[in-house]
Amino acid sequence: MVQSIIIGTGSYIPDQIVSNKVFESNQFYETAGSKVYKKNESIIAKFSEITGIRERRYATADQNASNLGFQAALNAIRSANVDAETLDYIIVAHNFGDVELHSNRTSQVPSLASRIKAMLGIKNPDCVAYDLLFGCPGWIEGVIQANCFIRSGLARRCLIIGCETLSRVIDPHDRDSMIYADGSAAVVLEGPTSDRGIVAHKSRTYSSGSNLLRMDSSFSDFTDNPNDRFLKMNGRKVYEFALTNVPLLMMEVIEKAGLHLTDIRKVLVHQANDKMDQAILEKLFKLSNLDKIPDDLMPMTIGWLGNSSVATVPTLLDLICRKRLVGHEIHTGDHIIMASVGAGMNINALVYKY
Amino acid sequence: MVQSIIIGTGSYIPDQIVSNKVFESNQFYETAGSKVYKKNESIIAKFSEITGIRERRYATADQNASNLGFQAALNAIRSANVDAETLDYIIVAHNFGDVELHSNRTSQVPSLASRIKAMLGIKNPDCVAYDLLFGCPGWIEGVIQANCFIRSGLARRCLIIGCETLSRVIDPHDRDSMIYADGSAAVVLEGPTSDRGIVAHKSRTYSSGSNLLRMDSSFSDFTDNPNDRFLKMNGRKVYEFALTNVPLLMMEVIEKAGLHLTDIRKVLVHQANDKMDQAILEKLFKLSNLDKIPDDLMPMTIGWLGNSSVATVPTLLDLICRKRLVGHEIHTGDHIIMASVGAGMNINALVYKY
Repeated sequence: MVQSIIIGTGSYIPDQIVSNKVFESNQFYETAGSKVYKKNESIIAKFSEITGIRERRYATADQNASNLGFQAALNAIRSANVDAETLDYIIVAHNFGDVELHSNRTSQVPSLASRIKAMLGIKNPDCVAYDLLFGCPGWIEGVIQANCFIRSGLARRCLIIGCETLSRVIDPHDRDSMIYADGSAAVVLEGPTSDRGIVAHKSRTYSSGSNLLRMDSSFSDFTDNPNDRFLKMNGRKVYEFALTNVPLLMMEVIEKAGLHLTDIRKVLVHQANDKMDQAILEKLFKLSNLDKIPDDLMPMTIGWLGNSSVATVPTLLDLICRKRLVGHEIHTGDHIIMASVGAGMNINALVYKY
Repeated sequence: MVQSIIIGTGSYIPDQIVSNKVFESNQFYETAGSKVYKKNESIIAKFSEITGIRERRYATADQNASNLGFQAALNAIRSANVDAETLDYIIVAHNFGDVELHSNRTSQVPSLASRIKAMLGIKNPDCVAYDLLFGCPGWIEGVIQANCFIRSGLARRCLIIGCETLSRVIDPHDRDSMIYADGSAAVVLEGPTSDRGIVAHKSRTYSSGSNLLRMDSSFSDFTDNPNDRFLKMNGRKVYEFALTNVPLLMMEVIEKAGLHLTDIRKVLVHQANDKMDQAILEKLFKLSNLDKIPDDLMPMTIGWLGNSSVATVPTLLDLICRKRLVGHEIHTGDHIIMASVGAGMNINALVYKY
């Protein structure tokens, strides 16, 4: 079977470390106009216990999503050791475009893909650059689209980037703002080849849940500008949605690949929430009637990187490939599964043979 | 050769007619802070002469891009006479998301594709819904991507929508604001088939020109909010760019299809500017050493619809298919070419056999 393989990975982790302590002075609201009267210290302790997040990274004031994406792209191209002029596609997954600090405005004309292509200095006009919006699963979806272009002969080499600055669209009066982070990562995908690469994948859109993650007004009752919109989440419903649908999809894709769960060496799940990701893994094992989850199966970065949307899965992959996640390695012949869930509501999963 | 065919078309033309007269009271600026002292009547007369625009359509206050897209989608699905639950993909091309009137804010989480899927009431989660940002050529690019999904066996039936509300991102102090309009159109693409459909296509991204069409500050020196951003164009450079690159690409795709320009029955070009589109057609004929351009070759709607970005080409197609453009018909066996140019800078062209 014709496959596409990952020939290089790269990530860019923003320098600015933001600890949970930073949120101690926020005034949180339950919902619009209704203050939370619990002490912030206990809100934050509970938050950290559930999500596993101790700190997260934010872009600096002079950086936008496309700047982060450019850095990750540069690292992926270097790791692939290819001439950037030979790329047939640059696909950039994001959801909020470039948002200047304190602007509450999306800038995405020209597309982030065009901006990053220009920053990379690529002259070849046959390198087609576009942006893809698919919630947090956007980066995996970009890999699936690139794989399709490669399999159908439309492309040979594609760069797929995920970049996002959630710090620019968070409501400081919403406790969920503590989850979100900035980040970027990328891979270079090449094909066709025959003995390894993408084995199986599947995507789904549940638009009946389209209000579970959405742009909406601030919870505060004294917003400076009533037009300001922020990322809002119905956390409990997102949790239920993910737990209902993601493990089933992962099982389906593993079976589609002709494999069993015990053949999978690494599970790279979108870093949304530590408890949720652990629950997804447990349910996946329950579906396979397996008790023992190997300790090193599911690498996690949420504790120190937070939830950086489209960037979490490729960042995990890059950190493992560069041996920067202690105790996690991928070897030739290993099968891994990547899976994500997010706004849309969208989910996807992909089995890859290294 | 395996092909995808268009089995249904639909468009939605907003009700609100905005004549050139509406702009007579605007205060135009050459650039930030530098007023235009010519009378608006003569500015508008010159504008109308070059662009061919007499009036354009705007969405009503309660409509967003996704509302327009939903209406077009409904019409395309009805025209295709298929069950919407059988769609494998919903691809929505836009560039600014949903922008509420006077908000200067993009809302695109969840994606417009998810919003439209929800409005259509489609329950099937296997119908994957995503948004594509590729400047004005985004809708043609969506057709190209859907064709690739169909050819590689990933999909059988796809809905590709272009929807945009440029009226929500225009600077009233910029003369170029008179060009822009709102609109939406869609097609249902199906495959595989063998004797007709998409014959050849090609896309290009010239990111060195990425600043020719971009989001930027108002020209006025008394903006209410310095964070507001509007669609800005370097009109002369866009004209030069289009004239240099679009006819060559069209020739290339016609040759790739194994055809000659004389085999082409209709040329559907992005409605950007009447003079520019006529110049593109003239250059295309010059490249083929042909003198005589058939009168009914290139249908135009810009005079009454303005430039509605991603919506212009599919709207042209739908109006012809529904016999609503006097003097323009497409018959079985006809070859047509669609081509577009826009922010990125991106260009694409596609030859289709009816």
